[in-house]
Amino acid sequence: MRIAGDAKVQNYRIHFAYDGTAYHGFQIQKNALTVQQVLEEALQQLFEQNIRLEGAGRTDAGVHAREQVASFYASPRIPVERLPYALNGLLPPDIVVYEAASAEPGFSARKDARAKLYTYTIDNGLFPDVFFRLYAWHLRKPLKVEAMDAAAAHLQGQHDFKAFQSSNSDTGGTVRTLFQLSVSRLPGSRVVLSYEGDGFLYKMVRNITGTLVEVGLGKREPPAVKKILESKDRRWAGVAAPPHGLCLERVYYR
Amino acid sequence: MRIAGDAKVQNYRIHFAYDGTAYHGFQIQKNALTVQQVLEEALQQLFEQNIRLEGAGRTDAGVHAREQVASFYASPRIPVERLPYALNGLLPPDIVVYEAASAEPGFSARKDARAKLYTYTIDNGLFPDVFFRLYAWHLRKPLKVEAMDAAAAHLQGQHDFKAFQSSNSDTGGTVRTLFQLSVSRLPGSRVVLSYEGDGFLYKMVRNITGTLVEVGLGKREPPAVKKILESKDRRWAGVAAPPHGLCLERVYYR
Repeated sequence: MRIAGDAKVQNYRIHFAYDGTAYHGFQIQKNALTVQQVLEEALQQLFEQNIRLEGAGRTDAGVHAREQVASFYASPRIPVERLPYALNGLLPPDIVVYEAASAEPGFSARKDARAKLYTYTIDNGLFPDVFFRLYAWHLRKPLKVEAMDAAAAHLQGQHDFKAFQSSNSDTGGTVRTLFQLSVSRLPGSRVVLSYEGDGFLYKMVRNITGTLVEVGLGKREPPAVKKILESKDRRWAGVAAPPHGLCLERVYYR
Repeated sequence: MRIAGDAKVQNYRIHFAYDGTAYHGFQIQKNALTVQQVLEEALQQLFEQNIRLEGAGRTDAGVHAREQVASFYASPRIPVERLPYALNGLLPPDIVVYEAASAEPGFSARKDARAKLYTYTIDNGLFPDVFFRLYAWHLRKPLKVEAMDAAAAHLQGQHDFKAFQSSNSDTGGTVRTLFQLSVSRLPGSRVVLSYEGDGFLYKMVRNITGTLVEVGLGKREPPAVKKILESKDRRWAGVAAPPHGLCLERVYYR
């Protein structure tokens, strides 16, 4: 619980990774286990007080994070440099805190985030790679990666991404900027889509990925993606890609 | 069940990968789930007959395989090129068959294997990488990889590896040839040990890895490994590395 005006209260930020397989997303929910709940319980045990985390990105059920950032207020109980070790001792092995620092008063991991990098990984081999089954979407038909990348170019920059927002979204406008959107084939059978943007609408990355996959399968031509964007109509875009290929890679601050 | 002399019986080999996390090793056991049991049940369902697999490598509980090979005799029921698809439809997602072929009569995946390649992966970052927690041994103290590689050089070639064999071994001699044993740091925080040899004693790779890690931590000097080898005494070698970092990568035939 944030105790405003209390001189002894400190603002903190923590950086952590998680395997989202076992969780119903990041954000706290009733009757479902989330990453936020597990982290808050560990923090409360450590700090012996109520703590409310503010996370930079609200990843969905099954989505992973290589870097997620959250901030919280607490009365200090432990040196900040010891915090990752103490927390990891209380956390399950699928959540790892690897950095903790004092933050300026008023800093919010969510509101102050300037940009985020997500990747979406596709396992494009004839048979699924068992070691990526929880971290990549298996599609056995070979994807035309150059066509996907050409289609992706239409989405870079500032646009109204309403067509790629899932219906039941909390909004605040649907204009976002994609600084980078690229599709590339890694050595082996993986295809990776990288999305760097100032913000993402609900299921935007998965909806765009599903649409670009239709281009990669030859079901749509690259310029069709520009028309979908301009339609601002969700019904034109492809089906959302499944959550387990998605990973929050980095959160950028000033 | 092998039906010798029956003209309709065909010899097969299959190539498959598995995540060993959920299994008590490859080889069939009473009262414990193994990869062999799960595969045999799928094959029996498909071929509608008793089938006994012969696997190339008997990986221990928690050990993985990127390529494991097994052979079996059965009366044909399905075109061999359809076998991987049909089997994968029956198998859990942590076992994937990616190749099947007819084999010469008498071919044995175990007896005819000429060499095997194993890797042992160490996650040597300050904090464990959540995505490798099931596939790498986390050691936070930085390893001296050059010293480990120098120590490893003493073990290459043909030697009596008795000192690196776990006590309760079935034997048939303890002389083996390591064609290659190298230790290298990958980009990021992983250290990988590659073992290519004509055969491996029980827990040999994990015992050598544990010993080389002691060299990497500065607890022993590289030449000590030569002395351990020459001692032929298991008590001189280091503690076995945990199973989950170990992976059977390839099996070589003539």
